[in-house]
Amino acid sequence: MKAHKVTMLGTGLIGDFYTMTLQGQRNRDSVAVVYSRSEQRGKAFAERWKVDTYTTDMDEAINHPDTDVVVVALPNHMHEEVITKIAQAGKAVLCTKPLARNAEEAKRILDTVEKAGIFAGYLEDLAYTPKTLKAVKSVESGAVGDVLWVRSRETHPGPHSAWFWDDKQAGGGCIIDLGCHCIEIIRNFVGKGNRPVEVMCWKDTLVHPISAEDNAIALIKFESGAIGQFEVSWTFRGGMDLRDEVAGTHGTIWLNHFLRTGFEMFTAAEGNSYVAEKSESSTGWLFPVGDEVAELGYVDMFTDMFNSMEVGINPMETFYDGYVVNAIMDACFRSAETHAWAPVNLDWRGGHTPRITQNPTMYEGKVVIKQETLPDGRVKMILKDPATNEFSDQVVGTVNT
Amino acid sequence: MKAHKVTMLGTGLIGDFYTMTLQGQRNRDSVAVVYSRSEQRGKAFAERWKVDTYTTDMDEAINHPDTDVVVVALPNHMHEEVITKIAQAGKAVLCTKPLARNAEEAKRILDTVEKAGIFAGYLEDLAYTPKTLKAVKSVESGAVGDVLWVRSRETHPGPHSAWFWDDKQAGGGCIIDLGCHCIEIIRNFVGKGNRPVEVMCWKDTLVHPISAEDNAIALIKFESGAIGQFEVSWTFRGGMDLRDEVAGTHGTIWLNHFLRTGFEMFTAAEGNSYVAEKSESSTGWLFPVGDEVAELGYVDMFTDMFNSMEVGINPMETFYDGYVVNAIMDACFRSAETHAWAPVNLDWRGGHTPRITQNPTMYEGKVVIKQETLPDGRVKMILKDPATNEFSDQVVGTVNT
Amino acid sequence: MKAHKVTMLGTGLIGDFYTMTLQGQRNRDSVAVVYSRSEQRGKAFAERWKVDTYTTDMDEAINHPDTDVVVVALPNHMHEEVITKIAQAGKAVLCTKPLARNAEEAKRILDTVEKAGIFAGYLEDLAYTPKTLKAVKSVESGAVGDVLWVRSRETHPGPHSAWFWDDKQAGGGCIIDLGCHCIEIIRNFVGKGNRPVEVMCWKDTLVHPISAEDNAIALIKFESGAIGQFEVSWTFRGGMDLRDEVAGTHGTIWLNHFLRTGFEMFTAAEGNSYVAEKSESSTGWLFPVGDEVAELGYVDMFTDMFNSMEVGINPMETFYDGYVVNAIMDACFRSAETHAWAPVNLDWRGGHTPRITQNPTMYEGKVVIKQETLPDGRVKMILKDPATNEFSDQVVGTVNT
Amino acid sequence: MKAHKVTMLGTGLIGDFYTMTLQGQRNRDSVAVVYSRSEQRGKAFAERWKVDTYTTDMDEAINHPDTDVVVVALPNHMHEEVITKIAQAGKAVLCTKPLARNAEEAKRILDTVEKAGIFAGYLEDLAYTPKTLKAVKSVESGAVGDVLWVRSRETHPGPHSAWFWDDKQAGGGCIIDLGCHCIEIIRNFVGKGNRPVEVMCWKDTLVHPISAEDNAIALIKFESGAIGQFEVSWTFRGGMDLRDEVAGTHGTIWLNHFLRTGFEMFTAAEGNSYVAEKSESSTGWLFPVGDEVAELGYVDMFTDMFNSMEVGINPMETFYDGYVVNAIMDACFRSAETHAWAPVNLDWRGGHTPRITQNPTMYEGKVVIKQETLPDGRVKMILKDPATNEFSDQVVGTVNT
Repeated sequence: MKAHKVTMLGTGLIGDFYTMTLQGQRNRDSVAVVYSRSEQRGKAFAERWKVDTYTTDMDEAINHPDTDVVVVALPNHMHEEVITKIAQAGKAVLCTKPLARNAEEAKRILDTVEKAGIFAGYLEDLAYTPKTLKAVKSVESGAVGDVLWVRSRETHPGPHSAWFWDDKQAGGGCIIDLGCHCIEIIRNFVGKGNRPVEVMCWKDTLVHPISAEDNAIALIKFESGAIGQFEVSWTFRGGMDLRDEVAGTHGTIWLNHFLRTGFEMFTAAEGNSYVAEKSESSTGWLFPVGDEVAELGYVDMFTDMFNSMEVGINPMETFYDGYVVNAIMDACFRSAETHAWAPVNLDWRGGHTPRITQNPTMYEGKVVIKQETLPDGRVKMILKDPATNEFSDQVVGTVNT
Repeated sequence: MKAHKVTMLGTGLIGDFYTMTLQGQRNRDSVAVVYSRSEQRGKAFAERWKVDTYTTDMDEAINHPDTDVVVVALPNHMHEEVITKIAQAGKAVLCTKPLARNAEEAKRILDTVEKAGIFAGYLEDLAYTPKTLKAVKSVESGAVGDVLWVRSRETHPGPHSAWFWDDKQAGGGCIIDLGCHCIEIIRNFVGKGNRPVEVMCWKDTLVHPISAEDNAIALIKFESGAIGQFEVSWTFRGGMDLRDEVAGTHGTIWLNHFLRTGFEMFTAAEGNSYVAEKSESSTGWLFPVGDEVAELGYVDMFTDMFNSMEVGINPMETFYDGYVVNAIMDACFRSAETHAWAPVNLDWRGGHTPRITQNPTMYEGKVVIKQETLPDGRVKMILKDPATNEFSDQVVGTVNT
Repeated sequence: MKAHKVTMLGTGLIGDFYTMTLQGQRNRDSVAVVYSRSEQRGKAFAERWKVDTYTTDMDEAINHPDTDVVVVALPNHMHEEVITKIAQAGKAVLCTKPLARNAEEAKRILDTVEKAGIFAGYLEDLAYTPKTLKAVKSVESGAVGDVLWVRSRETHPGPHSAWFWDDKQAGGGCIIDLGCHCIEIIRNFVGKGNRPVEVMCWKDTLVHPISAEDNAIALIKFESGAIGQFEVSWTFRGGMDLRDEVAGTHGTIWLNHFLRTGFEMFTAAEGNSYVAEKSESSTGWLFPVGDEVAELGYVDMFTDMFNSMEVGINPMETFYDGYVVNAIMDACFRSAETHAWAPVNLDWRGGHTPRITQNPTMYEGKVVIKQETLPDGRVKMILKDPATNEFSDQVVGTVNT
Repeated sequence: MKAHKVTMLGTGLIGDFYTMTLQGQRNRDSVAVVYSRSEQRGKAFAERWKVDTYTTDMDEAINHPDTDVVVVALPNHMHEEVITKIAQAGKAVLCTKPLARNAEEAKRILDTVEKAGIFAGYLEDLAYTPKTLKAVKSVESGAVGDVLWVRSRETHPGPHSAWFWDDKQAGGGCIIDLGCHCIEIIRNFVGKGNRPVEVMCWKDTLVHPISAEDNAIALIKFESGAIGQFEVSWTFRGGMDLRDEVAGTHGTIWLNHFLRTGFEMFTAAEGNSYVAEKSESSTGWLFPVGDEVAELGYVDMFTDMFNSMEVGINPMETFYDGYVVNAIMDACFRSAETHAWAPVNLDWRGGHTPRITQNPTMYEGKVVIKQETLPDGRVKMILKDPATNEFSDQVVGTVNT
């Protein structure tokens, strides 16, 4: 049994979530060093989580001898610089999402860690929710047949820190903040070897007085013909809407990670208790989640990261995945500009996925379009004559009812 | 109390649904004449519904002296011809959806009935579901603020009659069959005076051996900035998925018309009982609906049609609406061809809708981006300096907790 | 097509619901005369619903020559007197639930209408909700096998009129107000020929300053061995909770009539709009119902009443049913007093229902208790040796996995 | 950071669940010794979970020097004997539910561990589900006011091992197997200091050819006036139904732990994949859970156990709690025999809880029963005259609408 000591870079909401997870339950790993730009926040964080060392010196934090893993929980525009330092320190790096502000930056980061040969994990927590993991496994075992369509939706009333709203620091608005999650969820369902070919994206700034987009929808076409669809918004009312849907040739999956998970509470009592991340009110009907860090995937994510590190294999979510996500988001921004589909430009390593196959059944020389049993037991077929392309209804038999 | 006698043109599934509704509960109206292309089906229909007269002669059916209203429940390619006859007969006409195969055809139909001065109702049942009617009323009363986004989804394993699958007769595939519903639902939510400006559409034939599309997604941009999104499919597994979602500046609406309506049944018993339209199985967990014709809007639709006819006003859904729907679908097909957004070309009668307004609050000379109360009671604002466009977090006070 | 003219006795909430239904959609029947104890309320009601005649003279209302049907929508303690008058008038009578304050009174009412030979319908709307009708039909067709258990729950924050809270007028508290619904729902599921044998009831006055019970739970044992369970309360928070659950040897049914029917709305907007009967708030997450009078069964109830009247048969819900319900409620009150099970005393007309049967399968001379397929494909049986009554696990084979 | 080495007694389903949890994620604790009655099953278990030592010698397992904690995962009739041995060994003991077959046995076990002074934890996992923990915390913080009613339901198609079905070994049927969970969930919601006073229980053997009960319902009256209600069954169809409901003076909580947790899947594909514990089928609509051991409370349960052990405090669930549960189940069996309420006989340590208080508001000398705002803005009160006990409706004002 090996335990890891972590340097945590950043003390915002995500730093808290990460540390709560790392040091939660009966976990063996822990944060030993924390870096904050602010001494005050660093100190408070160290007290809150019983962390030995806090510092405002980035280099000290990264190179501190007590730790073997560095977690990057800093604003997007700082990722490249600090990951370069971590690579130089030769430590394992785990970086929050998105990997970078754009694919070019992401590619340089990817090259840096690959050159340094360090372990690098992409902290895409929502690909690791227990429901998503189980659903992806079902899809891989054929439970829904060929995947045709994946919808991933993440919407809430907007992020909690100033820098998210500034597209210079963040690289964009809700596409960058939320779309990165959706894209990677979609990729896990359609298959990571399924090349994203082109993208159609609508974005607009409808409500907030900012220049970044606060609403966006995109379609991502994959090599197999499957379509991914993401919907992101910083203007949603009613909490945080986190849902995924998958349609395949033989099945359907619907996941709801937040607002309808079997926990419903009505309260008319006065109070100010914490309901859940981005919950909007504390009276009336509320929809809390049980264990947020578990439901949001943090627990399984760090388990995969540390276990992979120890075994010496890639984690499920790598920096390459982060780079692909950035490339797709780049295409989204281009599509919104050109008002048309935009190709996804990337250095693809995933091989080829064949087109979803159609295997029409034949009946008496005609193509069977549909077969159904009528209420009275007659079995009806809709047939197409391949010669004439004429369609017809035909009763082909009767079953006992 | 006035009662109407109806000529029903067509004896397919939709003719049954219409007649079941018209003659259901304690309704006063009834079908007196039915036309079918097949004598056998006409006779069976007349017996099933106790209809006095059946005929295979279209003109006889339309001009029969017993009836004052003609309902068109025939394949799309027949609409123009029969509505022309009905206009000549000077009777009220109620036409199933879609109005036509394309906007040009729809416009000619519209012109025909307007010239004849007859009452014309567009039988868009899903705009009349009790949930939709109530939700639209809530939206109109301001319950969700300005509408930003509407998603309407209709997917199932494919229609029951051969002609639907033949794009020559139908005018297209699932866009024509299902998209017409979604578009009109979306229009009711964003406001019928909100001009549809342009459309982006993806369509593909992924599963069925047909030339029409069996899957499609489209975005419709409205003059206000609101976005409509429809998802239609003939390849969905698990029943019929009929859902609408509305997001506004101040609220959210989620409607589920079919699969999750508070009726859940598990059965391990053998059987072949009818569960609901397009249900896929008769064992395991099933999700029936209570009263299908009521839940699907048929009851409120015919009530509006006959009541409007008697009062001498337009029904909620007119042939003009049907024409707008066709114009939007035309734009969908063009967008899919050009691989880019396509303008909606139509003779617009709906006036102008202003852009969704942003009303930023100010705090000490800065724009308030977000305000939230932290768990410890501190009230935090995210602010933007209008001079520098810099964003900052600022604690502005404390509330009792 | 026959249309009925109704005398409505009573102008409270239930009178409104009845009239809204009777005169709703394209219905042919209508209210022609209304009686109210208050001239002002009678006049307002007549204007609201366009009723020709209003009066404060009960005899005039009942005997008015314009009407052939009298609907009793008055407080419980008035039922016997007015139904006696209606019987003398020889008109059809439809009486709201409960039929009476106790079984003795109910029996006298039943005798009165049977002696007079008039049509008498028991207005138990919740037995007629479209979901309940469909679910009962599924149960009758064997979809859940033998019914083992039925739970019916009706709870809300309390009724809208003063007399309900006064047990002298009402005959009790929430058992009388709500339990009557639950009991009849349960009877429809276990079978009306299934004799209610004995009852165990807890009741208490936990919150309201009244002498009647504001909370109660009861178990009803039926001749077949099936158990009914009702939960009623006037102290529920969050709206109106109307749910039914059925468990059978081969299946399960869950019905939710109000709070989760596929209509979900979040609103942060100010407003005071009507959401649904007994909704508690008008902001936050709300759960409206589509068409309340349809969802609550009023539409199908009146259809059955008038159709049965015209055909000359008993409606689904008769005064005898109302009497059985009163007899069960009487047993509830006795059980609460004696702190033990109490027999249901009634003049039973329903015949006999055999005990739910056990049909054990045998395997190699042992009784099969359970068979299951393990994840690795082994088929395991749990067996009981009938000679020794010893239980054992035994792997009996393997299936392909 | 302290890590514990565990002796696991028993290799059935529950032993697997416990070990999966103990050694799951990044947990620091592990199983070092396993005891099984069967060498074959012990060996397989040791291989499956990489456990160093397996043995069929109970004393060796308990006294093995490598371990400091012993987990009892054996049939109920063995608990007393093995816990006596563990007490002699002076190790910490964690015992699966129920603690014993009856209160007498449970009391002896309790006395044994208290005398020995060892740490003793009661493995009642369902009191530890993340949802339950959060909901109980909400209740404790006043979110639902005074608790009036708690319903806990656990039903499924029956247990997986032979001994459960044998009431000599188990002590009873589904009351013993499932009721113990429900009772402890109820106690956590009504407050553990709220004395269970008396019990009313119905039980029957409706389906399975066994002498133990396969269905039961009980009401538990607590000192505060609150009522607990449990429903347990081994004959449920459709999976495992695990639901809790809480009603309080100011709020409502609904928890669904299994069948509706935001994970819905339809599959028409052939397969035999594991969906969830006690799932009934592998095609059609399925409702898997994400991370079963987390959702069922195992993770938080062991965390509390080991953390409490290290700090030297009692865990949330103690052997005393197990004893109370047995005492309540004893009363259930007595009630079923006497056909009446039965007192709960136990050595109560929990102190007194006052009766739920009624605080009636007064208006002009009358008791306010209810206040509501009518659709037209009038504010209506239902009032009771304390002198005459007469009830009246009174409009007391108007609000802007």
